[in-house]
Amino acid sequence: MIKFDCDYLEGCHPAILDLLIKTNFEQTDGYGCDKYCEKARKLILEACGFAGKRGKNVPEVHFLVGGTQTNTTVIASILRPHQGVISAVTGHINVHETGAIESTGHKVMALPSQDGKLTAKQVEKHIKSCVNDCNYEHIVQPGMVYISFPTENGTIYSKSELSAIYDVCRKYGLPLFIDGARLGYGLAAEENDLTLSEIASLCDIFYIGGTKTGALFGEAVVITNNAFKKDFRCMIKQRGGMLAKGRLLGIQFVALFTDGLYFKLARHAVDTAEKIKTALEAKGVKFLFDSPTNQIFPIFPDEILEKLSKKFSFSFWEKTDERHTAVRICTSWATKDEDIEKLIDFFNRI
Amino acid sequence: MIKFDCDYLEGCHPAILDLLIKTNFEQTDGYGCDKYCEKARKLILEACGFAGKRGKNVPEVHFLVGGTQTNTTVIASILRPHQGVISAVTGHINVHETGAIESTGHKVMALPSQDGKLTAKQVEKHIKSCVNDCNYEHIVQPGMVYISFPTENGTIYSKSELSAIYDVCRKYGLPLFIDGARLGYGLAAEENDLTLSEIASLCDIFYIGGTKTGALFGEAVVITNNAFKKDFRCMIKQRGGMLAKGRLLGIQFVALFTDGLYFKLARHAVDTAEKIKTALEAKGVKFLFDSPTNQIFPIFPDEILEKLSKKFSFSFWEKTDERHTAVRICTSWATKDEDIEKLIDFFNRI
Amino acid sequence: MIKFDCDYLEGCHPAILDLLIKTNFEQTDGYGCDKYCEKARKLILEACGFAGKRGKNVPEVHFLVGGTQTNTTVIASILRPHQGVISAVTGHINVHETGAIESTGHKVMALPSQDGKLTAKQVEKHIKSCVNDCNYEHIVQPGMVYISFPTENGTIYSKSELSAIYDVCRKYGLPLFIDGARLGYGLAAEENDLTLSEIASLCDIFYIGGTKTGALFGEAVVITNNAFKKDFRCMIKQRGGMLAKGRLLGIQFVALFTDGLYFKLARHAVDTAEKIKTALEAKGVKFLFDSPTNQIFPIFPDEILEKLSKKFSFSFWEKTDERHTAVRICTSWATKDEDIEKLIDFFNRI
Amino acid sequence: MIKFDCDYLEGCHPAILDLLIKTNFEQTDGYGCDKYCEKARKLILEACGFAGKRGKNVPEVHFLVGGTQTNTTVIASILRPHQGVISAVTGHINVHETGAIESTGHKVMALPSQDGKLTAKQVEKHIKSCVNDCNYEHIVQPGMVYISFPTENGTIYSKSELSAIYDVCRKYGLPLFIDGARLGYGLAAEENDLTLSEIASLCDIFYIGGTKTGALFGEAVVITNNAFKKDFRCMIKQRGGMLAKGRLLGIQFVALFTDGLYFKLARHAVDTAEKIKTALEAKGVKFLFDSPTNQIFPIFPDEILEKLSKKFSFSFWEKTDERHTAVRICTSWATKDEDIEKLIDFFNRI
Repeated sequence: MIKFDCDYLEGCHPAILDLLIKTNFEQTDGYGCDKYCEKARKLILEACGFAGKRGKNVPEVHFLVGGTQTNTTVIASILRPHQGVISAVTGHINVHETGAIESTGHKVMALPSQDGKLTAKQVEKHIKSCVNDCNYEHIVQPGMVYISFPTENGTIYSKSELSAIYDVCRKYGLPLFIDGARLGYGLAAEENDLTLSEIASLCDIFYIGGTKTGALFGEAVVITNNAFKKDFRCMIKQRGGMLAKGRLLGIQFVALFTDGLYFKLARHAVDTAEKIKTALEAKGVKFLFDSPTNQIFPIFPDEILEKLSKKFSFSFWEKTDERHTAVRICTSWATKDEDIEKLIDFFNRI
Repeated sequence: MIKFDCDYLEGCHPAILDLLIKTNFEQTDGYGCDKYCEKARKLILEACGFAGKRGKNVPEVHFLVGGTQTNTTVIASILRPHQGVISAVTGHINVHETGAIESTGHKVMALPSQDGKLTAKQVEKHIKSCVNDCNYEHIVQPGMVYISFPTENGTIYSKSELSAIYDVCRKYGLPLFIDGARLGYGLAAEENDLTLSEIASLCDIFYIGGTKTGALFGEAVVITNNAFKKDFRCMIKQRGGMLAKGRLLGIQFVALFTDGLYFKLARHAVDTAEKIKTALEAKGVKFLFDSPTNQIFPIFPDEILEKLSKKFSFSFWEKTDERHTAVRICTSWATKDEDIEKLIDFFNRI
Repeated sequence: MIKFDCDYLEGCHPAILDLLIKTNFEQTDGYGCDKYCEKARKLILEACGFAGKRGKNVPEVHFLVGGTQTNTTVIASILRPHQGVISAVTGHINVHETGAIESTGHKVMALPSQDGKLTAKQVEKHIKSCVNDCNYEHIVQPGMVYISFPTENGTIYSKSELSAIYDVCRKYGLPLFIDGARLGYGLAAEENDLTLSEIASLCDIFYIGGTKTGALFGEAVVITNNAFKKDFRCMIKQRGGMLAKGRLLGIQFVALFTDGLYFKLARHAVDTAEKIKTALEAKGVKFLFDSPTNQIFPIFPDEILEKLSKKFSFSFWEKTDERHTAVRICTSWATKDEDIEKLIDFFNRI
Repeated sequence: MIKFDCDYLEGCHPAILDLLIKTNFEQTDGYGCDKYCEKARKLILEACGFAGKRGKNVPEVHFLVGGTQTNTTVIASILRPHQGVISAVTGHINVHETGAIESTGHKVMALPSQDGKLTAKQVEKHIKSCVNDCNYEHIVQPGMVYISFPTENGTIYSKSELSAIYDVCRKYGLPLFIDGARLGYGLAAEENDLTLSEIASLCDIFYIGGTKTGALFGEAVVITNNAFKKDFRCMIKQRGGMLAKGRLLGIQFVALFTDGLYFKLARHAVDTAEKIKTALEAKGVKFLFDSPTNQIFPIFPDEILEKLSKKFSFSFWEKTDERHTAVRICTSWATKDEDIEKLIDFFNRI
């Protein structure tokens, strides 16, 4: 069985293992206060375009273990008790984190979305409806906006779309948080017109996902807005995200951000997804979402899917009608070219 | 200005004030451990059809101050951390309690509804989709079902509808909680086919609203399912709902449940609402919801509404199109016949 | 049985009942947006010495139903997730609110106290130990200081003691919150050297208790620090403290703060407590705390207590040794002179 | 600088790295549903003495990333809202987790302790005082008992001490949870008379710490009481503890529980700590606690400590008087014999 279920099926890129082995017996302080975390922070800041910056306006970089933990820590650190977070109804925080946000006391204010994205217009409309509600104190007030880049449907925001959302956020004084669990795959998309620096400048806080892009685990939170820096390490510790051997996170991000490895790995995944997509499209397969990243969502006739499923596994997404099913095919930094070819060959021969 | 905005515009029925005055200088224990609370519990149990019951299966009756507090206390006392509460999207807990449920760590799982009601079918479908989800532990699992009777739109469940929902709840082991903030007005509706006893037997826990039916304040929670009785008083105290001078709640419910006063007051409100409805319908006015209780939702042309608003006030509900507006007219135990006549006369003369 | 268990044994001062009756059929807006709340706010601000103030620096006054609710709402509205509230170990929030503060996510940082009071020195020492801890992010950081005036042991802070604590709070940027559930009784104490205005100027937020000083229920929160005003009504609603018929709170505080009634009632309770104390001291009775307010804590030989308990009831406080017990005798605005005399006579005749 | 600050200074035992490398490119399902987690569960159950067991009474084994996360997940999954967890005042959950337990809504009920241990007697006394309190519903009720083995002071419970505590727990229906962050080091202590099987049978839930005993990270929760198994994976996910590449946890525990590696590593640390202790005692050094595990707490004259600190680092513990300081020396699975000798030599030559 060749698996295309998700982008966390394998271990990690060998460069990370090499560095883990090399540093294994060094003694370092715990909790992220070691030289590898320090170096990783520097490399990430450089990649985000803050190379020359000094002083209190330099963003802070923090390392956490996983995505749900990161989303929860960030959101709970920002909101006041009566506030909620605006998200697309498809947002990971709304549907796949077992109510982690609510567990910290806050409502996820889910707005409708077909493709996984929010629009500036709908965000503004919702904020206005809350702020101007004659029952102001009886309803949850929005305290921040959450988007994912790429979204859970593999789609990405253009520079103008993201700028428009951030403009709305600033107009109403709401911070914007970007969930970058798959950030690399979004940046690597052919149609993407945003750089990492631009992402960093178009939000208040975001994270760079490691888990799904070649690391064993790890997410790097970048806080660009000074207002949210204070005591963030306390938040990490309280939410169970402060790794005792914090250097493991530093080491991984050092490896990923040396010589642009992170971006190369992401590029590979997007390229392989594109190959599958092209091959399927050539055979007339339709897709549930128009996604330019490492997640694609072909709609197969059920009898075709049954045959494919003998050799390949995918994530079930939804039944599109009685005889068709949309699945998610997910490539990654580790997807082998030969496996792609096997999939395409097999499909072409059905 | 004659106000029809809501059913808590006035103080309380004079019988309550009389009893407060009469008992004012008596010394009683605090926190609901007094003879008036004791008597009120007995009267409520009788009204619910438990007159002869003895032993551990007799429902518990607890008194709290207000509705949001009651909903929060009940729901938080039942759910485990990873569970949510199923509610109509229009449910009070979902839209008008400033995220109180979420503040205790739980998601409100809002299902679509046009008229404010849930159907047994949609509840079952939703429960099944959660329980059978291949990502079971990544999603919020339903832990109970919340409905309001009457709903926030003034509609009521029939006996067969409520029975069907409760059957689904028992099939999946989920407790059913009925928010009875306006319970009396629902029972008093012409088309209602449920008795208070039947309500009590078709759920696990519910409350009888006092605030909106003639009391100064106060809600009486009735716990019929033994599983939810343990330490409920601790929950009330923790959520800030345990009144020091608890007897004030007992005294009010004694007055309301003596000689069926509660039901008479509710009947009066429903009758007056019906009179207004009949008068408006006679003039061709349409209604947003088909509600048989004390809340009615006429749709007025904006120029008519403007004229009405010089003498009468209502709750704005929604714009139904560019030139029409739906408002809520709410009658209560305290609505005066002469005010109803003034409204109808004025409307007829426009 | 004549009861001295607590100061919420009776209903309310007749002036309040009179005003409730007089206003009963008026129609007013809900949730504290009525003319009686408005008037009560004005009267309270005047009593606090803000009579002439205008603009954004005028304190906000909010009305809640009970003490636990008020403490929870205030504290949860101020703290960030990783912060705790410093309190005497005897503080009401630490021992008698069923973990309400913790239920909102925050630790009560309990400091030792014999008499119920904190000292500026111990508060400063504790804050410094937290701020300077080498494990800063691993420990709860203090986010505010809570004291009660009078304390749960009936003791009060002198002006210099309170000033010293507030100086420490400002030095470290921690807001000071005063729980004034029995504020009136503290202000009325013979040895008290603080005015209500001074209280208001020596903290960031405090409340004036109504429940224990002649009201049916009700606490008036006064927010003097602008930083904590924003959206406080949302907090009240979320915590279940926003009374639908909010005017009931306004009406009661209007009555209490008209012609200084609040202070007269408090004075009466303190005077009667003083009479009992003097009589007991004359007979050689010792006291657990040196309290100048309406709560006194005599230590009785058990055989004396047994005899007293046939006619009078008190709150058990603690066994001081195998043959002696400390109880709390609590007088109130409603304590009758004849009952005091009966107690003293009976005691003298034992 | 040779560091003895803690037991998480290095990476992991090479056997773990080897297995990570060997399995790196295998494709496995995420979230702990892979064959390595399956195998690790089997190995752990065998080590706990459940080798032959079948059916629903077989304990469940779950893997989480770190200790704070594990403590929080376990405790929050068991307690009802009004309940707290009994702990020694020195317990990790009380002092070093940034209020993580409180963040889930629960009070840590801290009982005094000199050596880090609770006694059955004090636990029973506290439970009884809560259950019998005349203000039952006004106080936090104990919902479970937390102990650490070994404690934060390096001490361990004897079989009779642990049995006595568990007897009390069962008598009052409170589950017992053992924090085994350093479990191996406790089991390896010379004076220890408990086996892993006995630990497993003398509590309801416990965990076997990997992070501090040779793993990169990871804690294995063993749930022996059926009552706490239901939906535990949902709890893990909600608290951010469910690792996407869950196999990393399985792989590490497979390595640790193959051929008794876990116990060998622990033994090594305890032996080296014992060597240091013996050497220091020979020179008359006193210790703050009488700890038989890998943490020892010598009290040094400050001038000696100053000299030592030029070559070696320790954890500061406390000033014992004006001229003496207690530090923690922590050995681990990775401590080198030569470093021990250097420390002893250096000390002997001062």
